[in-house]
Amino acid sequence: MQTKNLTGKHLIGGKFCGTGGRFRGVDPASGAALEPAFCEAGTSEVNKALELADKAFDFLQTVPVTKIAALLERIAQGLEAEGAAIIARAHQETALPVERLRSELARTAGQARTFAALARGGSWAQARIDHALPGRKPLPKPDIRTVFMGVGPVVVFGASNFPLAISVAGTDTVAAFAARCPVVVKGHPAHPGTCELVARVIAKAIDRAGLPPGMFSMLQASGYEAGLALVNHPLTAAVAFTGSLQGGRALFDAAAARPEPIPVYAEMGSVNPVFILPGAAAAGADKIAEGLVRSLNTGVGQFCTSPGMALAVDGPSFKKLLAAICARAAYIPPAAMLHAGMQAAYDRGTKRLASIPGVKLAGAGAAGAPGAGGTKMASCRIFTADAALLSVRPELSEEVFGPSIIIFRCRDMAQLHDAARRMRGSLTATIHGTKSELLKHGGLVRALQRRAGRILFNGFPTGLEPCASLHHGGPYPATTHSFFTSVGTAAIYRYVRPVCFQGFPDPALPEELRAANPRRLRRLVDGELI
Amino acid sequence: MQTKNLTGKHLIGGKFCGTGGRFRGVDPASGAALEPAFCEAGTSEVNKALELADKAFDFLQTVPVTKIAALLERIAQGLEAEGAAIIARAHQETALPVERLRSELARTAGQARTFAALARGGSWAQARIDHALPGRKPLPKPDIRTVFMGVGPVVVFGASNFPLAISVAGTDTVAAFAARCPVVVKGHPAHPGTCELVARVIAKAIDRAGLPPGMFSMLQASGYEAGLALVNHPLTAAVAFTGSLQGGRALFDAAAARPEPIPVYAEMGSVNPVFILPGAAAAGADKIAEGLVRSLNTGVGQFCTSPGMALAVDGPSFKKLLAAICARAAYIPPAAMLHAGMQAAYDRGTKRLASIPGVKLAGAGAAGAPGAGGTKMASCRIFTADAALLSVRPELSEEVFGPSIIIFRCRDMAQLHDAARRMRGSLTATIHGTKSELLKHGGLVRALQRRAGRILFNGFPTGLEPCASLHHGGPYPATTHSFFTSVGTAAIYRYVRPVCFQGFPDPALPEELRAANPRRLRRLVDGELI
Repeated sequence: MQTKNLTGKHLIGGKFCGTGGRFRGVDPASGAALEPAFCEAGTSEVNKALELADKAFDFLQTVPVTKIAALLERIAQGLEAEGAAIIARAHQETALPVERLRSELARTAGQARTFAALARGGSWAQARIDHALPGRKPLPKPDIRTVFMGVGPVVVFGASNFPLAISVAGTDTVAAFAARCPVVVKGHPAHPGTCELVARVIAKAIDRAGLPPGMFSMLQASGYEAGLALVNHPLTAAVAFTGSLQGGRALFDAAAARPEPIPVYAEMGSVNPVFILPGAAAAGADKIAEGLVRSLNTGVGQFCTSPGMALAVDGPSFKKLLAAICARAAYIPPAAMLHAGMQAAYDRGTKRLASIPGVKLAGAGAAGAPGAGGTKMASCRIFTADAALLSVRPELSEEVFGPSIIIFRCRDMAQLHDAARRMRGSLTATIHGTKSELLKHGGLVRALQRRAGRILFNGFPTGLEPCASLHHGGPYPATTHSFFTSVGTAAIYRYVRPVCFQGFPDPALPEELRAANPRRLRRLVDGELI
Repeated sequence: MQTKNLTGKHLIGGKFCGTGGRFRGVDPASGAALEPAFCEAGTSEVNKALELADKAFDFLQTVPVTKIAALLERIAQGLEAEGAAIIARAHQETALPVERLRSELARTAGQARTFAALARGGSWAQARIDHALPGRKPLPKPDIRTVFMGVGPVVVFGASNFPLAISVAGTDTVAAFAARCPVVVKGHPAHPGTCELVARVIAKAIDRAGLPPGMFSMLQASGYEAGLALVNHPLTAAVAFTGSLQGGRALFDAAAARPEPIPVYAEMGSVNPVFILPGAAAAGADKIAEGLVRSLNTGVGQFCTSPGMALAVDGPSFKKLLAAICARAAYIPPAAMLHAGMQAAYDRGTKRLASIPGVKLAGAGAAGAPGAGGTKMASCRIFTADAALLSVRPELSEEVFGPSIIIFRCRDMAQLHDAARRMRGSLTATIHGTKSELLKHGGLVRALQRRAGRILFNGFPTGLEPCASLHHGGPYPATTHSFFTSVGTAAIYRYVRPVCFQGFPDPALPEELRAANPRRLRRLVDGELI
């Protein structure tokens, strides 16, 4: 295995450093600790990474955009070239199937290429120009031009559930590079070896592209301290995080309490409710049950868009739907979750649900043996409850991460509407219905518009299409700022801010704002997009 | 005076309410308390205003955009129709010159019309469409469409220094209406009568436009409690604030500590440094001095873009520049500030500066009599200090609100660059120089790009041009989120978030996303802007 070459060290500005291995990756399928031991970042590593990033930021502002785009393309190539080793290690550390990791690696390389194209294109920077009117009365109008520019060093916290696409070289990192921002990644302790392998790919690409090595560092850490130190560092300008509500909120709170607060763009828990209207339940119970159970069990329920609750109106079609869901679920074999901590949280969460009076376990996944070494496996859980319970037990709208769902029985459509209005912020909300039902229940759509980032009709929430129109965000607790997305090209806007130039001579302006428009951008000129 | 008709009450959802006058406006020129006494909003008013706003929000989503635009135009007309009474009362409450208030009222009406045009135009909503590819392999691509929609009820805190343009009917309010968001304004206690008059104009315009009265409320309050209650209310979705760093930070902290945090877009203090390069100081000391002293004294130094520090390289031209500044300042008569609290803060701030070893009072405004009733007046203050002091006394980079400036003497250009790198976040930064100096000192521009929202060349920071290219924001402490602007059409983005629709039948989509494009918008379709 290539992973025998792992150093267990941090990679700071192109150099491996750190001494004394303190923690190890663990194979969740067997519970076995993996070699090597990894270093634990402290204040000196945090300081060094951010000081290098700060210097690199200034330099990056002077680099031609073609070099930035070339870097992103080199990262994509490097991921593909090292793909076999990366996937092998990621499989060991996460127990995610190799086939899934192969497609995740392809997605990760694809994202890097998408942001290369975005950087090259340049229209994302939304250049705006208002020409001077020196003869205007009573006052002359000055020449004013604005363009989006990078904010400074960005700190990235990857997610355990996407060890490639939302980790060291995920959207957060490549979007920041496209915005000419240096990145310091806090490696995820559930896949430290994967982090090291991917960090090497990035450092090598930076070196080959002739860009400053200080623009990227990856620090290994198993505890909270290094992450908090990164967020609290005065040179950090923005933070991206994907993970639990508890973790995201802790970073958000720390950043808000800084002498100079900075934004933490945290994508956190989400319950992703599915509303099944009577027409759909009557006509397509089997198809809905099939899609819902598959969506619920995608990645052992460890997707941020995994459906955690469904709601339908009581009656014969409700019973049919519930029976179909339970029948499908009974075929799902137990599977290893990403790490022991997540498995323990799933066990606690499902136990807590089962203990709430009025919540009933209606169905479960297939029985199965524990993993090698007796490790626990997660089994799918189907609960039911009366929708009336939602108003007295608001914790029923909280996410239980893993393959568990509550099917709520609503007395009538009014109660289903009421449940929608009680919903907390969510990445997604889904409606199953006939077209005429959807048109009839515009109030339901409006209620969901206020509470979800993405509303699906007759679909299932897992499986993102990372195109220009995608929005992967939503009101708290789905994210800490609902304006921004963490997937898709618009993710770049988390790392930029408008800079306005007034009365500048043409050669002193950024390229995007010059009279000759050397980058041939579409620009808003005197209020007109040309 | 029409102001005899003032009720002293809150205006909640079109109805005056409240009992028991608790505080009065004060004429800052004479110190005289003005009639009538105004009510103090408490929890019940806050709850009522937000519950009405919440209901109105749902309704507003169904209203044709032409009605929203018509409302904004009616507000503009109403401000003009009631202009004489509004200006008379604002002059009494703020001591701002009538001529200035007249132009501010025109700007306020102009802003409302600008946002009416923005709402009618609709391109601000940035509709994005990716069509389905049902035959794509390995997986079909779903139909995905995204558009910006309003976030919910918005709470607005106006500023004392712009009692019309940044108060009850200022950009914050009209931008929120354009985004179909209801607004609850916390009236500014320094101009409560002006708030009431303007609130009436809005309520009448809503009534005439046939829109829900609950979409607007204005609560009178002299203390912090009502403001905090508005920010903490679970139905509040976003907050806009213009004012002091202390006030803005308190609201930001409260919002960040909520169970469900919401954004507070606070535009706060800013020191707006002016960097005068040797060539400009040698060639144009008199012209720079004239412009700088005028900018410094605009509105008695009570503009958020007022220059609080200037930096130049020591030598004969520095002495000439300083002498010219002091000579101009000596002609500036003392003037009444907006209220006694602001005058007291200015006195404390300038006394504190004078007491710092190494800071010298180099010049001051003309002597003058106190106001009627012996009220204090603010006199322009010109301090000097060595730039080396900036590294040991960082408080010298803090804003003193009012007509006070420190002129820093730099040993050489290296020290001037160093000072730029120590600068805190600011709304603006200004460079005076020759064109060749500007090109030579690209590092200075890059340092300022990182720290300021707007960079001016050979201009002065006061006096905003509210066009599409304007950005009025900046890194903390200039604002709490440097992505957003509080002036100009882009101010609408503070109150919206993307909502994504997946697989929706055409008639169930918002107008902006429908196949026939009934609003004839420019949209990003399959990655192409058409």
